[in-house]
Amino acid sequence: MPGSEFGTLFHVSTFGESHGCGLGVVIDGCPAGLSLSVDDIMPYMRRRKPGQGAFTTARNEGDEVEILSGVFEEKTLGTPIALLVRNKDQHSSDYGNIKDIYRPGHADMTFDKKYGIRDYRGGGRSSGRETLARVAAGAVAAKLLSEFGIDVISFTRSIGEVEIDERYLNPLENKVSRDKVMQSPLYMPDEDASAKAMKLIGEYRRNKDSVGGVVEIHATGLPVGLGETVFEKIDARLSAALFSVGAVKAVEIGDGIKSSFYAGSENNDGMTNLFGDISKTSNHAGGCLGGMTDGSMLVARAYFKPTPSIAQTQLTVDKNGNDVSINIKGRHDPVIVPRAVVVTEAMADLVLADLLMQNAVSRLDNLKKIYTEQGE
Amino acid sequence: MPGSEFGTLFHVSTFGESHGCGLGVVIDGCPAGLSLSVDDIMPYMRRRKPGQGAFTTARNEGDEVEILSGVFEEKTLGTPIALLVRNKDQHSSDYGNIKDIYRPGHADMTFDKKYGIRDYRGGGRSSGRETLARVAAGAVAAKLLSEFGIDVISFTRSIGEVEIDERYLNPLENKVSRDKVMQSPLYMPDEDASAKAMKLIGEYRRNKDSVGGVVEIHATGLPVGLGETVFEKIDARLSAALFSVGAVKAVEIGDGIKSSFYAGSENNDGMTNLFGDISKTSNHAGGCLGGMTDGSMLVARAYFKPTPSIAQTQLTVDKNGNDVSINIKGRHDPVIVPRAVVVTEAMADLVLADLLMQNAVSRLDNLKKIYTEQGE
Amino acid sequence: MPGSEFGTLFHVSTFGESHGCGLGVVIDGCPAGLSLSVDDIMPYMRRRKPGQGAFTTARNEGDEVEILSGVFEEKTLGTPIALLVRNKDQHSSDYGNIKDIYRPGHADMTFDKKYGIRDYRGGGRSSGRETLARVAAGAVAAKLLSEFGIDVISFTRSIGEVEIDERYLNPLENKVSRDKVMQSPLYMPDEDASAKAMKLIGEYRRNKDSVGGVVEIHATGLPVGLGETVFEKIDARLSAALFSVGAVKAVEIGDGIKSSFYAGSENNDGMTNLFGDISKTSNHAGGCLGGMTDGSMLVARAYFKPTPSIAQTQLTVDKNGNDVSINIKGRHDPVIVPRAVVVTEAMADLVLADLLMQNAVSRLDNLKKIYTEQGE
Amino acid sequence: MPGSEFGTLFHVSTFGESHGCGLGVVIDGCPAGLSLSVDDIMPYMRRRKPGQGAFTTARNEGDEVEILSGVFEEKTLGTPIALLVRNKDQHSSDYGNIKDIYRPGHADMTFDKKYGIRDYRGGGRSSGRETLARVAAGAVAAKLLSEFGIDVISFTRSIGEVEIDERYLNPLENKVSRDKVMQSPLYMPDEDASAKAMKLIGEYRRNKDSVGGVVEIHATGLPVGLGETVFEKIDARLSAALFSVGAVKAVEIGDGIKSSFYAGSENNDGMTNLFGDISKTSNHAGGCLGGMTDGSMLVARAYFKPTPSIAQTQLTVDKNGNDVSINIKGRHDPVIVPRAVVVTEAMADLVLADLLMQNAVSRLDNLKKIYTEQGE
Repeated sequence: MPGSEFGTLFHVSTFGESHGCGLGVVIDGCPAGLSLSVDDIMPYMRRRKPGQGAFTTARNEGDEVEILSGVFEEKTLGTPIALLVRNKDQHSSDYGNIKDIYRPGHADMTFDKKYGIRDYRGGGRSSGRETLARVAAGAVAAKLLSEFGIDVISFTRSIGEVEIDERYLNPLENKVSRDKVMQSPLYMPDEDASAKAMKLIGEYRRNKDSVGGVVEIHATGLPVGLGETVFEKIDARLSAALFSVGAVKAVEIGDGIKSSFYAGSENNDGMTNLFGDISKTSNHAGGCLGGMTDGSMLVARAYFKPTPSIAQTQLTVDKNGNDVSINIKGRHDPVIVPRAVVVTEAMADLVLADLLMQNAVSRLDNLKKIYTEQGE
Repeated sequence: MPGSEFGTLFHVSTFGESHGCGLGVVIDGCPAGLSLSVDDIMPYMRRRKPGQGAFTTARNEGDEVEILSGVFEEKTLGTPIALLVRNKDQHSSDYGNIKDIYRPGHADMTFDKKYGIRDYRGGGRSSGRETLARVAAGAVAAKLLSEFGIDVISFTRSIGEVEIDERYLNPLENKVSRDKVMQSPLYMPDEDASAKAMKLIGEYRRNKDSVGGVVEIHATGLPVGLGETVFEKIDARLSAALFSVGAVKAVEIGDGIKSSFYAGSENNDGMTNLFGDISKTSNHAGGCLGGMTDGSMLVARAYFKPTPSIAQTQLTVDKNGNDVSINIKGRHDPVIVPRAVVVTEAMADLVLADLLMQNAVSRLDNLKKIYTEQGE
Repeated sequence: MPGSEFGTLFHVSTFGESHGCGLGVVIDGCPAGLSLSVDDIMPYMRRRKPGQGAFTTARNEGDEVEILSGVFEEKTLGTPIALLVRNKDQHSSDYGNIKDIYRPGHADMTFDKKYGIRDYRGGGRSSGRETLARVAAGAVAAKLLSEFGIDVISFTRSIGEVEIDERYLNPLENKVSRDKVMQSPLYMPDEDASAKAMKLIGEYRRNKDSVGGVVEIHATGLPVGLGETVFEKIDARLSAALFSVGAVKAVEIGDGIKSSFYAGSENNDGMTNLFGDISKTSNHAGGCLGGMTDGSMLVARAYFKPTPSIAQTQLTVDKNGNDVSINIKGRHDPVIVPRAVVVTEAMADLVLADLLMQNAVSRLDNLKKIYTEQGE
Repeated sequence: MPGSEFGTLFHVSTFGESHGCGLGVVIDGCPAGLSLSVDDIMPYMRRRKPGQGAFTTARNEGDEVEILSGVFEEKTLGTPIALLVRNKDQHSSDYGNIKDIYRPGHADMTFDKKYGIRDYRGGGRSSGRETLARVAAGAVAAKLLSEFGIDVISFTRSIGEVEIDERYLNPLENKVSRDKVMQSPLYMPDEDASAKAMKLIGEYRRNKDSVGGVVEIHATGLPVGLGETVFEKIDARLSAALFSVGAVKAVEIGDGIKSSFYAGSENNDGMTNLFGDISKTSNHAGGCLGGMTDGSMLVARAYFKPTPSIAQTQLTVDKNGNDVSINIKGRHDPVIVPRAVVVTEAMADLVLADLLMQNAVSRLDNLKKIYTEQGE
């Protein structure tokens, strides 16, 4: 079980190299009786696809997903759901020049040392293309969550120094509007910032360079109690999910780093029953207390490094221990962030679906709700 | 498996409430033949213990660990190692006043909603005392790692705005000196900063308030290749480990957040064979590439929120849905960070021990090294 | 995770050597809100204890279990339940003579070769005493199952050639009476057979020999659908549970071996709605179809080899590769079966509790029962 | 994780309904550097295929396996290996008549009750066709084992009352010859018995009935120590593997049931160093002691019930609770056993590959063999 599996009850097992036959995922544990078809998954796949020629690569990936199992007459059967995306138009020849050279910022050297063998064509399993399988699985998780009124939305919070305005963010009240997010080619729900970021990216591209940025995730409709004690806190599960996405270098929950500068009297969120149910008077915690959802909006942030593939000449080593310089050919995004938006959303969907299921068996009285009715 | 277990091959299962009989851990998977005695564990336990009256609570915890199983004639047997620490001097009465009130910033409300029942005495399972079991297990992991020349050290990087000087940190060369760390009551390896931080904490205490801070972790002696692809990247495993510690609100690997502002040409670490083996010309990545250790120093940071228990009056709700105000009695640290230092170190030890074992079976030729000799 | 853990959601982690400090178990995953005290566990422990001087060893084990965590005011908290039994009166000296000699039928040689080290005192981890932890955990599982009307009972079906009469067994209707079972010192619910078996065991003992036997398990009150498809069939889970008990050499479900001789027309169980709900007209299958409980009584059998420790001189080898003869000292049961009865029952309890919890999340409509009520 | 996954380190996740798009498996954890191509897998697939018109169904399954990932230039990459077999020629119409009727001896009723939905076409996930994925994965495991000189062979031991002669079985010396096994259309390595069994099956078929039988498994070349203590004993793992195959109703290890009738003095296997290394003077235990391989041949047996699909009229119920009679149409094997032979072999291969990997990390000195060489 060396790493391509995720989740306990809503368990996924992914596979595929970027230039092999295809990529896919087996979901073992999706409950039976959920309406599901390819139409539920493709919108997620398209959000991961390169944009309208702007700042994402021109490869036309046209990734069609096929449901191989687990769905019958558009309902999940409770059996494993296998999803497959075939690779096409692979241009392997483009990657011949990096066969023996270790690209800076890439996994070439580490894969070679760990496994003694590497699929050098486009990064193999460490390619960003690997995230296709996550997005497909995340779409299924999102469909499950929607049955419980749970909604997760990710968006670009910043590209380099360009950040969206604070008025678009209110961690206590409402999550960012999905419409606003989708209107921006960068998935950045602030027109001005989006336009500025487009310009910034253009500059980096012209300089044969790349830039990083930040994705923020909002989840709403969550019951209190998702997340388990100690090691399986929602904080831990969510951060692992986000850090498992290539290029993520930091994760925050709620106010994150800022919390370390606050006084306790500032940072503690008060609670009140003023509105008929327990609600918080602030949300510095980002929606979790003691490792569980607290009923307010879940807020997390993932910080992405700039794309390591740049068109400048870089110094590195080759397989045989020679110092060499490398010029990475091919079309590469000057920024990873916009394509990563849906990937982080998918990962959060997977975490929440799993914790929703785990939490269902945490109390004797919950179990009784199921078996006393079923047993009649 | 609702959350108190950690690790795949070096697997720990922890238990215990802060005011119950005791706390402990079962380690299932520690290899046979490792020298181990209580003397290997107690120094870690003592580092977690309240300091010399300065800025940690006055409770004399005197936590003696007992090895219940898995060790025979001071060698591990390969069977489960159970470690137990008895609770004593529990002062349950101190906690009676919070039985029905949900403390801001604590897990009281979420535990009650999730489980329908809660051990309200001192936080029960969500108490910081739970980390005792992690530290005990981490000491065993550290002993195992030491057999391979791997060393992990954690230290306080900042308290509130007071940060150690940059000259104490060099991510490329050498980790922080353990001696320097141990000389500071705050585990802060910069005398001036440590003194300033002590003063700052005193001010917060006088204001009946608390403050947060940052712990940094350095691991050296790592072979290339620890960490698995995709979901079990070392970044993911380590961040989950750190976020599972209560009060952590952000985690960075390497340059972390800063990477999101860099250009790719700045952020990429070059590689060279100048020194006889592949080494990096910088370490922005913090020692991991493609989710695996890259042979350079592993660098991570955990950001802690201020202690939620403060002596000021706070607004909150009680179990029955009434808005109330609360004054938390008892002795509470105005800062969590110093006591959390050894906890983060222990968590990193657990992650690395597990990944060291997992990586051992990643290649056919490694397996052959074992069985061809054993099979004779 | 090399082997001392069991179960997915109702997960146990056991520890302890027979002559170390003690034995115990951590149960991670028992739902919150279950009434539980030592009084629920001790009756199970006593059933495992040596009998009234008849045919079990004279050691007065007096195994008192202590609940270290996870229970508060006699209710489970939903957090890990740790149970500990201290060893006392260990007579290590009795075992000195087997320090370097590999006893036939025991794990001495294999442990030494696998781990390179062995706690030779009384078998260490491979001692029958290890089952104490299973029984304690099984008692908790049984308590949970009782909340759903599920009852498991194990009994001795045969000792050597002496088998209980068929009239005590009716796989379709009713399980064996617990009272009848408890009246026999061998847990054999047929007075005549029990008396004959006592005599038989006496003969084996006089011959310095030992004998095997069969335990049968009946579980009733089961809803349809416990057990998962493919690899986690209840057949697979239950057989693994039983084969994990030392000395078990065969397991049958339902008619077991006999089924392989039947014609399909004999072996298939018909179904009818004659009694208001689906019931079966026979139960050759032993209560499971397609790897799940089918609503009828679950029937399984475990076949035990004779105790390997016998007082006769046996030929074997020592640690240094010399052929030697061995006379095993100490008091050993001439038959394992009666003490194993409660162990098999405990294992079945653990399997069923786990599958009951797993099955609860198999359907979307079940999940909705929990969250729609909780979400209001 | 509701059941379609198997193994810890050599971990498989299977999927597919008999009349859906296809069946497959993802293997996560196969070590890097193993030579592997479709040619290694297809011979196993063909052994599962219906025979030459004799006593297996006439459907021409022509199951071609495709390697979707994890293999590059005919070597495993250490990344997930996905294998896919497309379904074709599905004749769904044949199964329309069983849409609402619960076939005796099948999983129709239990699936419906558990999931509330069922792919009624040919049994869906509970079809024997599900075993295709196991066989494909088992072929990869067998390839890995062959690198260590480990060889597993399964064969038909009996059909109904017709059993192979004892002279073909010698648990101490040598496993059954693979050639002899392959010469029989029933995989029965005794020409006379095979011929008799063919005749017997013909009779059952003419009677519109079916018959069961026994598969035996021999594994040789095993090092001492495969299998983990307590719950992950090789006995437990292997029995779960075999019981997870549909229609298995009993499993024996070594002498199995017979051991329960033996005296200890008969059943214990002596040990000697007469032949230069520890060997056993008999092998009643079937190659495992204390839950681990003991260096002698591993011997297990799986007992299969007769095919539940028979052409006779049977009494049962329908979905709506009516008593009905059913005539199962379609071509069904009068015996499952010959096709199950390779399935049991594959399951044993999977268990042994996994335990081989797990055992590799059981000792500190084994780990050192890997890292001291790699670390240079």
